[in-house]
Amino acid sequence: MRMVDIISKKRDGEILTDEEIIFFVKGITRNEIPDYQAAALMMAIYFQGMNASETLTLTKCMMHSGETIDLSAISAINVDKHSTGGVGDKTTIVLAPLVASAGASVAKMTGRGLGHTGGTMDKLETFSGMNLHLDRTTFINNVQQYGIAISGQSANLVPADKKLYALRDVTATIENISLIAGSIMSKKLASGADAIVLDIKVGSGAFMKTEKDAFTLAQELVEIGEGMNRQTIGLVSRMEQPLGHAVGNALEIKEAIETLKGKGPKDLEDLCLSLGANMLVLSNNARTYEEGVKILKEKLSSGEALEKLRQLVQIQGGNPKQVDDWDLMPKATHQVDLMATSSGYVSDLDAETVGLASMLLGAGRQTKEDRIDLAAGIYLYKKIGDAIQENEVLATLYTNDESKLSLASEKLQSAYAFSNKSPRKQKLIIGKVSKLGIEME
Amino acid sequence: MRMVDIISKKRDGEILTDEEIIFFVKGITRNEIPDYQAAALMMAIYFQGMNASETLTLTKCMMHSGETIDLSAISAINVDKHSTGGVGDKTTIVLAPLVASAGASVAKMTGRGLGHTGGTMDKLETFSGMNLHLDRTTFINNVQQYGIAISGQSANLVPADKKLYALRDVTATIENISLIAGSIMSKKLASGADAIVLDIKVGSGAFMKTEKDAFTLAQELVEIGEGMNRQTIGLVSRMEQPLGHAVGNALEIKEAIETLKGKGPKDLEDLCLSLGANMLVLSNNARTYEEGVKILKEKLSSGEALEKLRQLVQIQGGNPKQVDDWDLMPKATHQVDLMATSSGYVSDLDAETVGLASMLLGAGRQTKEDRIDLAAGIYLYKKIGDAIQENEVLATLYTNDESKLSLASEKLQSAYAFSNKSPRKQKLIIGKVSKLGIEME
Repeated sequence: MRMVDIISKKRDGEILTDEEIIFFVKGITRNEIPDYQAAALMMAIYFQGMNASETLTLTKCMMHSGETIDLSAISAINVDKHSTGGVGDKTTIVLAPLVASAGASVAKMTGRGLGHTGGTMDKLETFSGMNLHLDRTTFINNVQQYGIAISGQSANLVPADKKLYALRDVTATIENISLIAGSIMSKKLASGADAIVLDIKVGSGAFMKTEKDAFTLAQELVEIGEGMNRQTIGLVSRMEQPLGHAVGNALEIKEAIETLKGKGPKDLEDLCLSLGANMLVLSNNARTYEEGVKILKEKLSSGEALEKLRQLVQIQGGNPKQVDDWDLMPKATHQVDLMATSSGYVSDLDAETVGLASMLLGAGRQTKEDRIDLAAGIYLYKKIGDAIQENEVLATLYTNDESKLSLASEKLQSAYAFSNKSPRKQKLIIGKVSKLGIEME
Repeated sequence: MRMVDIISKKRDGEILTDEEIIFFVKGITRNEIPDYQAAALMMAIYFQGMNASETLTLTKCMMHSGETIDLSAISAINVDKHSTGGVGDKTTIVLAPLVASAGASVAKMTGRGLGHTGGTMDKLETFSGMNLHLDRTTFINNVQQYGIAISGQSANLVPADKKLYALRDVTATIENISLIAGSIMSKKLASGADAIVLDIKVGSGAFMKTEKDAFTLAQELVEIGEGMNRQTIGLVSRMEQPLGHAVGNALEIKEAIETLKGKGPKDLEDLCLSLGANMLVLSNNARTYEEGVKILKEKLSSGEALEKLRQLVQIQGGNPKQVDDWDLMPKATHQVDLMATSSGYVSDLDAETVGLASMLLGAGRQTKEDRIDLAAGIYLYKKIGDAIQENEVLATLYTNDESKLSLASEKLQSAYAFSNKSPRKQKLIIGKVSKLGIEME
């Protein structure tokens, strides 16, 4: 079998056989196929696509390219949640303790942020001393004993995806739905999930720019999950503007805590209830979606969800007092307000631009080596649809490096657009995809 | 400027600026752009194409990526001829002395063969002692004194094309008309030609499989040549079956000599007269195409064309007696006839398959390192349209390695197809492309 023949076959729009896909993924993993041939194949796939069967085979091969996590020692159904990435997306911090407090078994592997989006690992490091590199035994024991464990991904998880993703990033071949689906699902499957709830973001701040693309991706993800006998549900939600008000690690942790107290922003709470209720159904902790929502609301109001977060922080070596005492949270030495220069309404608040402004403040990484300022970030008082008065504060920027304020302010300013008419508010959740099909909200 | 942005621009079907193309070609030449990004761009160009202006810029940049040959010391117009490659294509061996004998100035740089097609350098080495590595001064002096010199290409000619071609070959991105045109013309232009006559082959034995593609390529080549102020003419000719009867180095040299005596196969003679007459017109050695043909026919019948070949061989250190005494030609120790198993007509004689059979006999190279058996090859007694009788000889295979005969015979057998009806004979030359447009034959 020759790689050049596989490339030319895909280039001509033909369907690759299982053997050809296996040959490719093994070759990439073992460094036996040069990057230039892999890059040419990725571009051919960008133009010609892959069908459901090719995508499933690719995903399986990538899943098995490295270590796979065996969670069978955990008797409960392990239900995992994944978001395709957004700005101000702290749902995992809320959801993990929330659904664990309702009886679900949460064995969560997570990652760091890069570019305009943040990462759950970085956010959790706001809790000083928090250990996010659990060994396998501790990870599984914690899930069994407390119903919750969150840890960084094993370095040897899906090495084929690590190589391919890095290559796609520099060859303009990220934006193919089959390749995105394979990349996401190979990691979820290798992480040992029994069932998967996906949050597919759509809009200017997300990979998927159109609803059509987002639903197509959701369908591919569900098809792969079900093809691997994992119950899979995908919600498609808007990411035109950041989720909630807080962007940046400590700021987002505080907002997540508020949400666990039942006092969070409505968009964030709605999304957590919806994702969480689906997780409870898939893990047999609720009979219906509606029952799931009801249970979760009780866990918020009873304080059990917040107590589960305290427990999570404590058992992983962090300081649980931070949950209740914000004086113990990382603090920024400098802050500046962005003011409205005229009255009217916020008509746009571009999520990606807000994410980049937050990164400029030190809250995110431009390269993998950058260090993060946990206190840096942005608090958005005004979001799309909000009325504003001249000289009212739109947002506050926080950083420990004063030199970064001016560029970040300019950037944030450019994320906002205004109008003199109130824009139509749009629902956050657009629809749900499962093996039964698409349900629009 | 970032290479990934150039790739994504072309991927999205946009037109690259001159600066972007310059950035790419310089980067490739200086090894500053990794092969995987070049491969991704080649595949994006395969799908999205390049317009005439992009192709011209690419060609110019590649032309200037290495050494360029200055032929301005030669006062006459240097007219070069290029064929896109075929099987049994010995036109250069005939044309160079033929047009030189008619007053044209022939400063020919040429190459070796690879795969199913042969190379002029290999063929000329049939003349023992022939020096095909002339230094610049000797090359130019010979052209000025004798009107003819043939030499291997400088190693530093168009390094960007060497790199890109090697990459395209293993990433299934050869078959793009703009990239093919840029590759061909950058070499012709760097070789110092003032005017160019091109032989664009079409058919199963050629790169271009359809007439439409061949004419599109011819138009791109002419457009680039004229865009660089070089008069350029492209003939489109068929390459369904091999040209002439002989395939293999010494066999082809003998057939070229027969053709220079006016006793060659009609298809080969016709093509040489047509290409040659255009060369005479472009070099001001004939006023019209018809006059050019008349002059060339006189040079064949007077013996002057053959005398020019003897002179060429002599001045470049070869043995000119080989031109007249075939006992001095390389001889094969083994030969075998391929016989007709029934009566009828030859309906097909696939050029590429014949070329591969000849390569298997030792006449060509599978890899650049292979050594050539100059005596090896195939003589085709029967070609498309010829009537055959059962047990008549279709072709003879020659080699110095008996072990190769059986596989090569099988291969050659598979190149032939037969029918009981006489197939329609097709004209060899299909049409001509110049700055004035397309003229069909």
